[in-house]
Amino acid sequence: MPEFRQDWATKEWVIIATERAKRPEDFTKGRETKKTLPEKADKCPFCPGNEDKTPPSFYTIQNNGAWKLRVVQNKFAALQPNLTTQRKKVGKFLKVDGFGVAEVVIETPKHNETIANMPDEDVKNIIVAYRDRYHEIARGQHICLINIFRNHGQKAGTSLEHPHSQIIAIPIVPPHIRDQITQTILSSDTYGTCIYCDIIKEELNQKERVILETEHFASIAPFASRYPFELRIYPKKHSCNFGDISDAGIIDMAYILKATLRKLYIALADPDYNYIIRSGPTDYANVRHYHWYLEILPKLTTTAGFELGTGIFINVTLPEQCAKVLREVKE
Amino acid sequence: MPEFRQDWATKEWVIIATERAKRPEDFTKGRETKKTLPEKADKCPFCPGNEDKTPPSFYTIQNNGAWKLRVVQNKFAALQPNLTTQRKKVGKFLKVDGFGVAEVVIETPKHNETIANMPDEDVKNIIVAYRDRYHEIARGQHICLINIFRNHGQKAGTSLEHPHSQIIAIPIVPPHIRDQITQTILSSDTYGTCIYCDIIKEELNQKERVILETEHFASIAPFASRYPFELRIYPKKHSCNFGDISDAGIIDMAYILKATLRKLYIALADPDYNYIIRSGPTDYANVRHYHWYLEILPKLTTTAGFELGTGIFINVTLPEQCAKVLREVKE
Repeated sequence: MPEFRQDWATKEWVIIATERAKRPEDFTKGRETKKTLPEKADKCPFCPGNEDKTPPSFYTIQNNGAWKLRVVQNKFAALQPNLTTQRKKVGKFLKVDGFGVAEVVIETPKHNETIANMPDEDVKNIIVAYRDRYHEIARGQHICLINIFRNHGQKAGTSLEHPHSQIIAIPIVPPHIRDQITQTILSSDTYGTCIYCDIIKEELNQKERVILETEHFASIAPFASRYPFELRIYPKKHSCNFGDISDAGIIDMAYILKATLRKLYIALADPDYNYIIRSGPTDYANVRHYHWYLEILPKLTTTAGFELGTGIFINVTLPEQCAKVLREVKE
Repeated sequence: MPEFRQDWATKEWVIIATERAKRPEDFTKGRETKKTLPEKADKCPFCPGNEDKTPPSFYTIQNNGAWKLRVVQNKFAALQPNLTTQRKKVGKFLKVDGFGVAEVVIETPKHNETIANMPDEDVKNIIVAYRDRYHEIARGQHICLINIFRNHGQKAGTSLEHPHSQIIAIPIVPPHIRDQITQTILSSDTYGTCIYCDIIKEELNQKERVILETEHFASIAPFASRYPFELRIYPKKHSCNFGDISDAGIIDMAYILKATLRKLYIALADPDYNYIIRSGPTDYANVRHYHWYLEILPKLTTTAGFELGTGIFINVTLPEQCAKVLREVKE
């Protein structure tokens, strides 16, 4: 029997359509095998030796004089830092110059790695770079929100194979985020708690959608998952802002991020995915109502008219089954 | 220079990224040519002669004893009508049985037609069927919202080639719709007008994003288009509910829908797209603040981490240029 499930925080509904139920192998069946990549690709602008094909690095992690990770301006930036944030009118419509920050984190010199099969130390470097860049960018006077994300594979919207993440910082808190925040405020005002803390507690209590749990984090297939194998990595301790992650938190996050992505990699034969760090606005310091997390969205299905028209996603898998499959992944 | 633009009604922002600007031919370049379809496909469940492969029709438009259009239950329905709408708890989480209506409008007996190249009479039949089914479904006690949509092509999420639309009716007004409505109420309370009436007036006044205008409708590339060649067909006269469309309106809507889709078909070599009729909730009768419209979303680009994380879409085309290209399409 199909069912609607509600995301306790955002109040968004999903349809879990068990009548069309799919198993993990249904998502890999008939899919093109991913090509094996070389460790170094001559034409790749992110490979060592081609540093002149990108804007210069302004943040580098090195080892024995060679770079292990570099951060550069996005050469095809959708936003630019040298503009104003003043609202302007076009007749009765509103616009703003495309002010913002757009950076690329080149995660490793190796063309053929991905977080799922990277050394732990390299994954840690990525999170360190995220945090360091977060702090630096957050100091910008007009920056309201810093969006850190990773597009893995063509279906996830990336054209470059070389492992990289992106950071786009904007001078606006959009309705998509503001509405989520408003719900957390309403809940906090009523119940005196952070709704995400409540969700994490409930998920850990119900157990069946938990994939991994560490000292600082838990990875979970959310009760109201919109996509097959949608996952969230929640910090267990309340924190509204990714920038506040501790050094110990970084090591733990690197471990759970790699382990979770590795389970996906094995169970679903390296699926395309997006991941996003959903952090509170940069002017949030210790607010009680919001809670940051990392969201992993595998690209296994297509969004169609119903989803676009209602915001309700039809999910053809049970999150409980996705979590079970991932828990049972063998190396 | 890139810019943010705001949707005047929903307050959602988009980024118009002119640095990555694309021309129409960039979207068709390198794309697989669509295969030529036969007028009748033996294994197609929607082709004449295969009526036993679908649930029985409960709505038919006939001509000389042969069906021209049929409506059937969706065989793989994500929702079912024989369930309750009572909220239930799963621990602290909320769920509801998957109550709802899921129908398929088989638009024509011909396997190889699509609205862009259908006879006008057949397009009219589709809109008539939409309205008739809308009225019938809206009588259901627990139905709150009727979503009529069309997925055209694989990238738009359809697996069946035969021309068809879908109707999914739900017992919930989801946040995605409620938030849009709330904005229209706030605007109406402040300015005493329907924000969509204001938008239509402004677009017709600015002209440069208008593609077609008829007695009852206008097709427009919205100022804050999220996707390349995103289009809206607005009824010019205020109306909150698609079900209230008049007979004259239907003829006019059939004309502008076909003409608009035909321009897309020619300019972009039959692109995959979703269209959605965004109507007010079924219990809305003559409300002043909401305005129904049909939204056409071509699938020319991929949604990635930034869009998923912020709800802000990066659009690589100027709506003004899209409208110009479509206005100038030659048959």
